[in-house]
Order: sequence, then structure tokens, then C-alpha cells
Amino acid sequence: MSAPILSDRDLEFMLYELFDAEGMTSRERYQDHSRETFDAAIATGKTVAERYFLPIRQRVDIEQPIFDGEKAITIPEIKTAIEAVFDSGLANPGASFELGGMQLPAIVASASTAYLSAAGSATLGYASLTNANCNLLETYGSQEQIDKWVVPQREGRFAGTMALTEPGAGSGLADLTTSAVPADDGSYRITGNKIYISGGDHEITENIVHLVLAKIKGAPAGVHGISLFIVPKYMVNDDGSVGERNDVSLAGLFHKMGGRGHTSCALSFGEKGGAVGYLVGEAHKGLHYMFHMMNEARIMVGTSAALTGLTGYQYSLYYAKERPQGRLPSCKDPLSKPVNIIEHADVRRMLLAQKAYAEGGFALCLYGAQLADDSHTAPTEEERSKAYQLLDFLTPVLKSWPSEYGPRANNLAIQVLGGHGYTSEYPVEMFYRDNRLNPIHEGTYGIQSLDLLGRKVPQNKMAGYRACIEAMRATVIDTAGSAELAEFSADLAAAIDEVDSTTMALMTAMGTENIDLVLANSVKYLEMIGNVIVAWVWLRQAAVAVAALTAGPHAQDEAFYRGKLQAAQYFFRFDLPEIYVWSKILATLDDTTYAMDKEWF
Amino acid sequence: MSAPILSDRDLEFMLYELFDAEGMTSRERYQDHSRETFDAAIATGKTVAERYFLPIRQRVDIEQPIFDGEKAITIPEIKTAIEAVFDSGLANPGASFELGGMQLPAIVASASTAYLSAAGSATLGYASLTNANCNLLETYGSQEQIDKWVVPQREGRFAGTMALTEPGAGSGLADLTTSAVPADDGSYRITGNKIYISGGDHEITENIVHLVLAKIKGAPAGVHGISLFIVPKYMVNDDGSVGERNDVSLAGLFHKMGGRGHTSCALSFGEKGGAVGYLVGEAHKGLHYMFHMMNEARIMVGTSAALTGLTGYQYSLYYAKERPQGRLPSCKDPLSKPVNIIEHADVRRMLLAQKAYAEGGFALCLYGAQLADDSHTAPTEEERSKAYQLLDFLTPVLKSWPSEYGPRANNLAIQVLGGHGYTSEYPVEMFYRDNRLNPIHEGTYGIQSLDLLGRKVPQNKMAGYRACIEAMRATVIDTAGSAELAEFSADLAAAIDEVDSTTMALMTAMGTENIDLVLANSVKYLEMIGNVIVAWVWLRQAAVAVAALTAGPHAQDEAFYRGKLQAAQYFFRFDLPEIYVWSKILATLDDTTYAMDKEWF
Repeated sequence: MSAPILSDRDLEFMLYELFDAEGMTSRERYQDHSRETFDAAIATGKTVAERYFLPIRQRVDIEQPIFDGEKAITIPEIKTAIEAVFDSGLANPGASFELGGMQLPAIVASASTAYLSAAGSATLGYASLTNANCNLLETYGSQEQIDKWVVPQREGRFAGTMALTEPGAGSGLADLTTSAVPADDGSYRITGNKIYISGGDHEITENIVHLVLAKIKGAPAGVHGISLFIVPKYMVNDDGSVGERNDVSLAGLFHKMGGRGHTSCALSFGEKGGAVGYLVGEAHKGLHYMFHMMNEARIMVGTSAALTGLTGYQYSLYYAKERPQGRLPSCKDPLSKPVNIIEHADVRRMLLAQKAYAEGGFALCLYGAQLADDSHTAPTEEERSKAYQLLDFLTPVLKSWPSEYGPRANNLAIQVLGGHGYTSEYPVEMFYRDNRLNPIHEGTYGIQSLDLLGRKVPQNKMAGYRACIEAMRATVIDTAGSAELAEFSADLAAAIDEVDSTTMALMTAMGTENIDLVLANSVKYLEMIGNVIVAWVWLRQAAVAVAALTAGPHAQDEAFYRGKLQAAQYFFRFDLPEIYVWSKILATLDDTTYAMDKEWF
Repeated sequence: MSAPILSDRDLEFMLYELFDAEGMTSRERYQDHSRETFDAAIATGKTVAERYFLPIRQRVDIEQPIFDGEKAITIPEIKTAIEAVFDSGLANPGASFELGGMQLPAIVASASTAYLSAAGSATLGYASLTNANCNLLETYGSQEQIDKWVVPQREGRFAGTMALTEPGAGSGLADLTTSAVPADDGSYRITGNKIYISGGDHEITENIVHLVLAKIKGAPAGVHGISLFIVPKYMVNDDGSVGERNDVSLAGLFHKMGGRGHTSCALSFGEKGGAVGYLVGEAHKGLHYMFHMMNEARIMVGTSAALTGLTGYQYSLYYAKERPQGRLPSCKDPLSKPVNIIEHADVRRMLLAQKAYAEGGFALCLYGAQLADDSHTAPTEEERSKAYQLLDFLTPVLKSWPSEYGPRANNLAIQVLGGHGYTSEYPVEMFYRDNRLNPIHEGTYGIQSLDLLGRKVPQNKMAGYRACIEAMRATVIDTAGSAELAEFSADLAAAIDEVDSTTMALMTAMGTENIDLVLANSVKYLEMIGNVIVAWVWLRQAAVAVAALTAGPHAQDEAFYRGKLQAAQYFFRFDLPEIYVWSKILATLDDTTYAMDKEWF
């Protein structure tokens, strides 16, 4: 088998046809760039993925990290792969030229690491969490902290983590018990236990910079009493050299269903009296700061879920084109040659669904990357502010929709391979296991739905929500007159109306009804709006395809664009209509789950 | 954690309230039985499960079978567990008294092994495939074959397999290449390779009896040229003692995503000149005979999928009642105690969905067991024949619906446990991996849907289909007048009408349209009719609950019946309405997947 990691053509389509990545070069920050430099970065990502990630794709799953009683040991090829990421500038492809970076627009940065994530999301995790850690510190840390902790992370000498979860406080951060006591030198002594810390220990880098949520003694109760601390694995001397071990120890490794290349650690802070920690920003504002990293991580999770879906799609597509089996129902001649399974309509259904889910999810995440960029580099303050509002509103969807539909795609990839897909001889069962983490970490599916309906929709007088509806309606208007798109355009228009009336009913109910009941079906709200937004993303892709077909592409591209149209049709006919089941449940404030007494189970 | 394997109360409800198992004692075959003897068999199953299966539930997953270059080695506790199954009569609980069996009705037999399957479906597989192997030979083998091969299997000294799949022929049996050449002594010499043979090698029993599909030289092409052979691992002497090794060797073991306790083998037949095989029945009728075993295996698969769903439900329910985390949206006091997660509506949604899917699927399979029994022991020939027709029609649904919804339930069990659910410290991720096999083996989901729409619906002038519709409509009539059930009754009536009009449109199209197009969305047909049938099963459960509530049960039972009603409501409101999306696709002969050109991907 030599299935491609991703489709080059599709990535090209997304960047340059669906989203106008080349247009970013008109902005000052990106004026030295061109399509050529963008393509070069993407080609580098592909090369590193093929050379360092693909060969160990299944090994990192089979040869899990080992806890030797003191430290976590990973296979050495992970270190080599991570070094290659740093050496090629892909650890932070958006970093400024002055910091030695490529200063790529976010959407191109995302594309440049797409092959890495698709070929080894667990391995890439060491680099991407490090990047997110730095991004937080660059925003909220002092210059001294940046010099001491960010610079070596940017160089790949240190790695970064985020340490939130505790044994007694997973999703419920208000109840975390890790404590911080001020020391005489202005630092703090941290004591407590954290679990599920990705990259919490390893020997890949010289040092690890943990960003730890803890409560300073006497802090207010709840989430408004949480502070953020830098807690290094090793102390760092004033000359930047790595010093003694801090009071942070590895208590154990978790054995996970998937994502096994990335260590998941239980860490003990302060068993010998208190780990040295340095307060980031102001006291009690830690959760707010951490959201900077969490929001970035959430988009990362969605992107990774979509990419794992995409690579499974490519793998099962390649398999389906090569594997002979059975005959069509219309064939009655047992002496005829078996057909390749892609000839079976149901196999095509499973491939088309994967295409619809994974390409739809990835396009959604690239749109998110574009919004993130726009919020910083769009020409006007109004555009920047609008992009920020839209991104903020969409974050739970960017995180959750691909996390639900990426695994669905991977599930179908297994099914395309049949019995083979169930064995570790083929990677598709690993893709599914890897992807199953995504609806859990960085805020579960349920938490995201509460964030969306309970906070993101109503906030700022529904400005983010309204911007989203407005953007979708603009596409409806643009496409209504096209013969090829009229069906989709009308279906999307009706779906948007349904979302809008459902949303308004829920917002009214929030003021008049029991809030627990109003939010009881929040997951269905997330599913409804997610499917409508992805339908919109598909309509935009279909519109590009129709324009290209009308202009008359050459033969090979015609097939590509027809595929886009067919995948859009699949999503509109097979998936979008489900929203009407959910909108009814939502609009009627269905109390089936709310009223279910715990004794009735 | 000490979550129950299954709910005793629910099993009692299914057997004695939903299905009148006690009424079976009026039939001659079961006249020596009573509720007490039924309960005793079920209690035995539970005891064996708790004593021998539960302690190794996760060990059989972690300590996978090993191939030492010659044979497959499993942990010794599997042998002990299987011996306990045979010693307690649970390997074939329906066997006649004269054969030393318990002669239980099929529905009670199914209930008596439910705990075993739920606590270790992979381990139980050795016994249940042996049973199905014997059942085939008892039907189609000669008396001599029964004496020689069945008796030692019934005693637990030999085990049985079914050997169909080949590297080049998985679902496409017409293309199998294993060959059989007649020898002078009336036996055959078998040569070929088989893969994915469950229990294909192990040291649990003295010998293994493979039932092998092969083609006799000169046989017609396709499925009408396949014959069935007994091919033992070891030859058996005339005195019944185990003799020399036959020419069957273990080429390797497959490493699977789940179900790891059950060896999955690649077997080579005839590497040294030909394995000795004995023809079962007549030449070229092998596939017909094998369907006897396959149909039984299909119902077994559905039952196992439902039970794995049920045990995951019980586990996550227990967890949700014990695990404190977070507060309700209405609670603004961070000093208040965190609630147990079962208080969160979305956790209740995930539990309720599991209940709806797993209890619905299991009730469906028990109904299938009852039909299997009725086809043999119902008082009149008309009843027997009708039961057979209905069972034959329903088999693809019995196999497939729980295989789709059981894993969905297990997926939600993982989600209830959050990060914990993703680690091997808890069994829920294993349940999901185990259950993922079920939509693949014994005929994939897609194959089942083609069997249903292409064969089972039209056959015998649609008699099986009509019997199913009629049975469902009878329940609609029975329940329409009940205030508590009227909503469900009306919804089911409408859904049945939708199924019926869709089916008629498809049957008409079969005569006039391209058959490949008509069958292109067969999976959606399977999903549609499956959801309607399970809604019917839920309405029947709800009707029992309403009757019991009306009669005034004591307090504890009231909670139980309220739970049944709420789960029925969940299924009717959250899942049943999806059929209207699928029926539209079906009735319009939607060609989205059919028309997708393979070059367009």
C-alpha cells in the first residue's frame, strides 16, 4: 500500500480556490510572500511527514511510551521527527521573520503542518503544544519570562505543556485543589496532582515548561480564584543553562486507547515541599489566560480530527480502488472477473461520506484559521473585530464538529477495509482509536455545547451568532441563481431559517424557563448548527466547482470538481436534513433527558 | 468499581413480562420446566460469568494469544472458563434431556448465556461457535459423522470452527479457491488457505473440527459449486481417540482491534499434499448447509453486540452515579458541593441513549430467539411456518441493528467516563473495540442490507415482510387507545406506513429500473426498517410498563417502569424520526452514491 497521506490537489483547492490564501500577500505582514513561498512551506511539511512521520506512524502506537519508575521513555525516532519539525521551521510557521520564523498567514501555516498532523498527530503533539504554550506566554508573560521560557521552547530545546486536569477535577475546573504559596523571592511553591498531562514527561527536549493552574492560598472560590504558573521540570540558571530538578515528578503514565505516541502523564507537584512556580500575569486571572491556549488547542483538536479523517479517507480510497471482491447485483455470471470494491455503490457511499465529513471539517478549520488571522491582520478595525467575534462564536463548533465527524469517517474507513480494517496490519483501526480522543480532551463535546448555547450565542447581544448567520445568508444569495446550485442554496436557506427560529425560541426561553431545562439538549443545538455551517462550507466548495466547470477546466480537473459537487450533494441530502429532527427537540424544550430521574435507570 | 454485568431486573422483565417465557412450559418439549428451572439456569450463567469470565475480562484483551511458530497459545484461564461453561451445561442450554442437556426454550437459553457474553464475548466465542458447528452437523451430517465429530464437541473435548474466508475471497464466496480432490477411501484431500478463522487454533480442547467450504474439482463456477467438509485438526481413530495431526497448519494469528481473547487464525490446508476432509451431505450444496450455521451465527452476533452495549451501559451508569464533577448551569455558588455527573442532563442523555439502544437491541434479539423456537415448537404448522418466515426475514436486522447501535452505545459509555473512558484502566474502551467487529464479521453491514432488500423482502411474495408489518400494526392497534401510549402508537403507525410505501416503491422499481441503482441505498433501507422495528419493540416494552404502572406496582418497580417509558420516549423522539430522511433517499432512488464516478474521488 502506498496511499497518499493527503490529497495534494484538495489542499491546493482549499487554499487557493476556496479560500484566497494568495490574497493574503496584499497585507503588509505577508507582502514578502507569494504563492511560491506558500507552496514551498507546504512541500516542506509534506517532505518531513513522509520522511520522519510516516515510517513510524504505526510504531508509535505499538511501542508505547514506558515509565521506568522515574521518567517516560519514548522511541528515539519521535525525538528525530520533532527535531526535523523544528529544523524546518514548522513548529511555529507563523512566527515573525525577526524571530527566525516563516511569518506565514495562519491558513498557510495550518496547511503546512497538515501532512504532519495527518501522518502522526500524536507525534506532532509535542511541537504543537509547545507552540501554544509559547503563544500564551508571549501574550501574557513578562519580557523576562519570555526570554527565559519562550526562547528555548521556540528553539526546540524545551517543550511546553498545559496542566489543568486533576483527579477530582476534570471538566470542573472550579474545584481544582493544586495550591500555590508565595515564597520570599517572589516565586511560589506549588503542591498538587495533575493528570492526563500530554507530553508531561519525556526525554525529547532538555526541559519541559508546564503551565499550571493552581489556587493561591486565600483566593476566591471557583474559577475566579485560579492563577497560572510557569513550573519547569528543571530549574533554569540565569545564564539560561538547565539546572537542578524542580519538585515535579512523574507519578505514572496512562495507557490510552489511541494517540499513544504522545505521553499522557500523572504529575506530582511539591512532594518534597513545593515545586517552584512563577506567576504569569496577575493573580486569579489564570483561567482567562489559559483560555488563550485552550482556544488555540481547541482549533488544533478540530483540525487534527479532520486530518485524521482525511488520511483514513485517502487510505480506504486507495484500498477500494485496488481490492477486487464480488460482483454487482446486476451481474449474474459467476465466471466474470470480480470488480474492485469501489464499483459497489455502498462502498462509494462510505467513501463519499468520508469525503463529505473530512473535507467539510478541514475546510471549516481552515476557515477558522483565516478568521484567526483576520482578527489580527485584516485591513480595518471593523473587519478585525468582526473576525474575532465570529471566531470566538465558532470555536466550539470548530473543535466539536470535526471531533464527531472525523471519527465517523474513520469508522467508515474501517468498514471499507472489512476484516482487514479490524487488524493492526492496516492503520485505519489506529486512526479511529487516535481520533476517539478528540471529542473528550480540551473540553468534552457536552462542555462545548454548553459553551456554545449558554455563552457564545447570547454574548455581545448575539453579535457572533448574527455574524455567522449573515455570512451564511450571503452565500445563499450568491448561489440562488445558479441552476447547478439552486437545490443546495434553497436547502441551506431553509436550514438557516430553522436554526434562526430555533435559536430565537431558545433565547426567549432562557429568560423565562428553567435554565437547566433550556440547556438540557445543548448537544443537539451544537449538532444542528454544526451541520448547517458545514453545509454552508460545502455550498461554498460547490460554488467554486461550478464556476471552474463553467469556465471549462481540463479533463483531470473536471473529475475533481465533479467529486466536490457530488460530495456536497451527499452532505445536503444524507446529513443536512437530520437537523429538523434536532430542531424540533430543541424548539419544544423536549424534557426527555431532563426529566429522566436518576432512579429510573 | 463493582458495576453489575447486566441488570437482573431488566432480564427478568424481558423474559417474563415482555416475552412470556413462562408460557413456553405449556409446550410438550418444555413441560418439565417452570419459572424456577429457568431462573436456576440464568443464575448459573451469572455465577459462571462472575467467577470465571469477569476476573479475566481485561486480561484476555491485554494478554493476547501468541503464535509460537506452530500453535496459538492463550492464557490458561480461558480454558478454565470454557470448561466451566461446558460443565454447567451452558455450552448448549437448549440440548435435549436425552443428550444430557437442559432442554431450555431458546429465549431462556439466550438469557442463560447473556451474562457470559456480556462479561466476555471473545472467551464465550470458543463455546458458541462449537455449538453452532454441532447444530449444523446434527442437521446435515450423517449419523456416523455425528457420532465421531459432534459427540466430543458436545462434551467439550473438541471445539468447532467455520472456515469460509480466503485472502482473495472475503464477502465474495463465489470466488473461493480452496479445492477438494476425492481420495480412494471416500474422503477428500483439501488444499487452500483460509483467514480470519475464529478459534482456528488453540490448546483449549484436544481437537478442533473445522467446517470448510471448498470446491470439488470440476464443480460448477460460483456459489453453486461449493461443498462443505469436515476437516479435523487431528485425525480421529475408530475408537474415538485422537490420532495423528492432519495436514492443517497455523500460518499466523491476526492482531485485532478487539475481541482479542478469541484467536483469529490464518490456516493452511494441504501444504504436505492435502488435508483429509469428509464431505457433509451432498456435493455442491455446501453454501446452503453453511447458511444454517451462518444464520445462527448472525443472530449470535447481534445478541453479543447488544449485550456488549448493555454491559457498557451498566458500567457507565454505575460510574455516573458515583463520580462528582461540576455543577448544574442554574447553580452559581462555587462553594456548593459538586454534583454526581448523573445530575447533568447531557450525561442522562448519554445514558438514556445507551439504554434505548442496548435494551432495544437485546429485546429484538430475544424476539428472534423466540421466533427460532416457535419455528420448531409452536403448536400448529401455520404458526411454525409463519415464525420461520418472520425469522428468515428479520435475520439481517437481528444481526445488523445491534451491530450498529451496540457500538454507538459503547461510544457513549466512553464519553460518560470522559478521559477515564479513554484509558485501559476502565473497560469501556475495550467494549467499544470488541463491539466494532460486529458490523464486519458474519456478513458486513452492507452485505446484510443487500440480503434484506434484494432477497428477504421480495422472497415468497413478500410473506416475511408482510408478516413483520402485520405484527407491528397489531401493536399499534393495541396501544392506540392508551393515553400514555397514544403518541408512540401514532408515531409508529406513521412510520410503518412510511416503510410500507417506500418498500412498495422499491419493489416496483426492481422490475422497471436498473437493479444496481435500486439497491444502491440498501443500507438506508436496513437503517429505516431497523429503527421502525426497534421502535415497535420499545412500544411493546412501554405497553408492559403502562399496564404494570396502572396495576400499581410497589415503589422500586415504579422507578423501573418509568425508566422503560422514558427510554421509549427517547427512542421515539430522538431516533425514530431519522427514518424520514432515509425514506426520501430511498423512495426517490437517489443516485448520489450510484452516480459517483470512481475517478471523481
